Amino acid sequence: MQIFNNRRELQQFALDAKRSGKTIALVPTMGFLHDGHMSLIDIARQKADIVIVSIFVNPKQFAPTEDFDRYPRDFDGDVAKCADHDADVIFAPEIDAMYDGNASTWVEETVLAKPLCGASRPTFYRGVTTVVAKLFLLAQPDYAVFGLKDAQQCFVIQRMVRDLDFPVEIIPAPLVRDADGLALSSRNRYLSADERTRALSIHRSLLAAKARIQKEKAFAPALEEAVATVTAAGGRVDYIEILDCDTMLSPDANTRQVILAAAAFFGTTRLIDNEIFAL
Amino acid sequence: MQIFNNRRELQQFALDAKRSGKTIALVPTMGFLHDGHMSLIDIARQKADIVIVSIFVNPKQFAPTEDFDRYPRDFDGDVAKCADHDADVIFAPEIDAMYDGNASTWVEETVLAKPLCGASRPTFYRGVTTVVAKLFLLAQPDYAVFGLKDAQQCFVIQRMVRDLDFPVEIIPAPLVRDADGLALSSRNRYLSADERTRALSIHRSLLAAKARIQKEKAFAPALEEAVATVTAAGGRVDYIEILDCDTMLSPDANTRQVILAAAAFFGTTRLIDNEIFAL
Repeated sequence: MQIFNNRRELQQFALDAKRSGKTIALVPTMGFLHDGHMSLIDIARQKADIVIVSIFVNPKQFAPTEDFDRYPRDFDGDVAKCADHDADVIFAPEIDAMYDGNASTWVEETVLAKPLCGASRPTFYRGVTTVVAKLFLLAQPDYAVFGLKDAQQCFVIQRMVRDLDFPVEIIPAPLVRDADGLALSSRNRYLSADERTRALSIHRSLLAAKARIQKEKAFAPALEEAVATVTAAGGRVDYIEILDCDTMLSPDANTRQVILAAAAFFGTTRLIDNEIFAL
Repeated sequence: MQIFNNRRELQQFALDAKRSGKTIALVPTMGFLHDGHMSLIDIARQKADIVIVSIFVNPKQFAPTEDFDRYPRDFDGDVAKCADHDADVIFAPEIDAMYDGNASTWVEETVLAKPLCGASRPTFYRGVTTVVAKLFLLAQPDYAVFGLKDAQQCFVIQRMVRDLDFPVEIIPAPLVRDADGLALSSRNRYLSADERTRALSIHRSLLAAKARIQKEKAFAPALEEAVATVTAAGGRVDYIEILDCDTMLSPDANTRQVILAAAAFFGTTRLIDNEIFAL
């Protein structure tokens, strides 16, 4: 397994690989890898000749008040896991090896990125689309695998790929849960045992809301009940909303699939989860 | 010579060419080609195995009040000129073959794009960087040739390429003038004979200002004289400014090269011109 820290070296490797007829699958991560990430790497492994895992905690997608400084890191553990799952390349640049000091160019998706996490974190998706555009240009992937834990991120990146004509196929991969139902996230590490137990209310409330929506064909009572459930468990709800997956607007007669999405704080930890289904 | 109207077909052609080891040079244009464009094609021809000329009047870089609808077009003439200069491919998409109706992603350079034409035309460079990013992803060029007539555009695109890690070398090509000194531009077609004669004052005023700046080492009197010259010739000056080429800020002790840039209206036609030099 090769490890690159320099973006030009990664790009040269990728361009050479493409010229020699190889296909590349990219798995972009912020490290501190868990079984959710491993499932992405396994999917990438099945799709392409070369699997590149990027590990980069991207400062441009964190607001000054957020957890950039304390975001969990375990590079040696990540390397062992990537090797275990047969990745070919890790790309792990330092911040100043990824961005020039006077970098001034942004890639911004302006519609699908607006609600949900885009409303709570106004500069978040601009940071995501900019770094993912760079990763695509550096790693030259034919495929890129993104987990549906961050479903809005998947939709935003699929839109960016379509709008800017990146020659890459985005593969959305199923959300992975722990045995108790908590969606896997590197940020779960922040939770106390008690917070973790209470955080299970997020998934529980989404499943109940989904069942009620499918039965009653009405959104408001189900969403209100979900908010009440998470609040009763001691969570501070950021949002619990239902949107059309294609438009990220309220569902209407043309809606094919909806996302029922939640974000809530337990202690200082912000967790997200979702259910995607047809109405 | 091949002509593509469909962006997916162009991209497949380009990806196949790259995989077979060929190099590609792109010359992005809005058509109505003149000798300035031909000089770009000739440079591209010397650099790469395959020369792609794109011809696309990009609606996203025109404000509603600008000349999108009347921008001059001559597709058959353009094809003949491209063939004459040994281009391999013309990419000439219709608008809706270039952009999906609900396209929502922008590429924006936020520093170098601010002054000069970026100040007069606030959404112009956002349209330029977005379409050029798309053209780069579609045509997969190793080289892209841009004329220094639009010097700020060159600088903005070079910055975008650096910031987003496009694997392309930008080749800035010298501005080409008509025998009388007028910078070649498709928009010169709009000028009456009288306007054209009076528009020569732009170049004349820039040369005088450059000489005075190099002699007196002061900017303000030279710029004021240039504005007076163009105004006296019946022009309405949009800007005549001198900026550091690297920062697009006022020149300072670190400045290596300056751009002395002008934009002025003669009748309803907005013309630009510039001189680039070391202080």
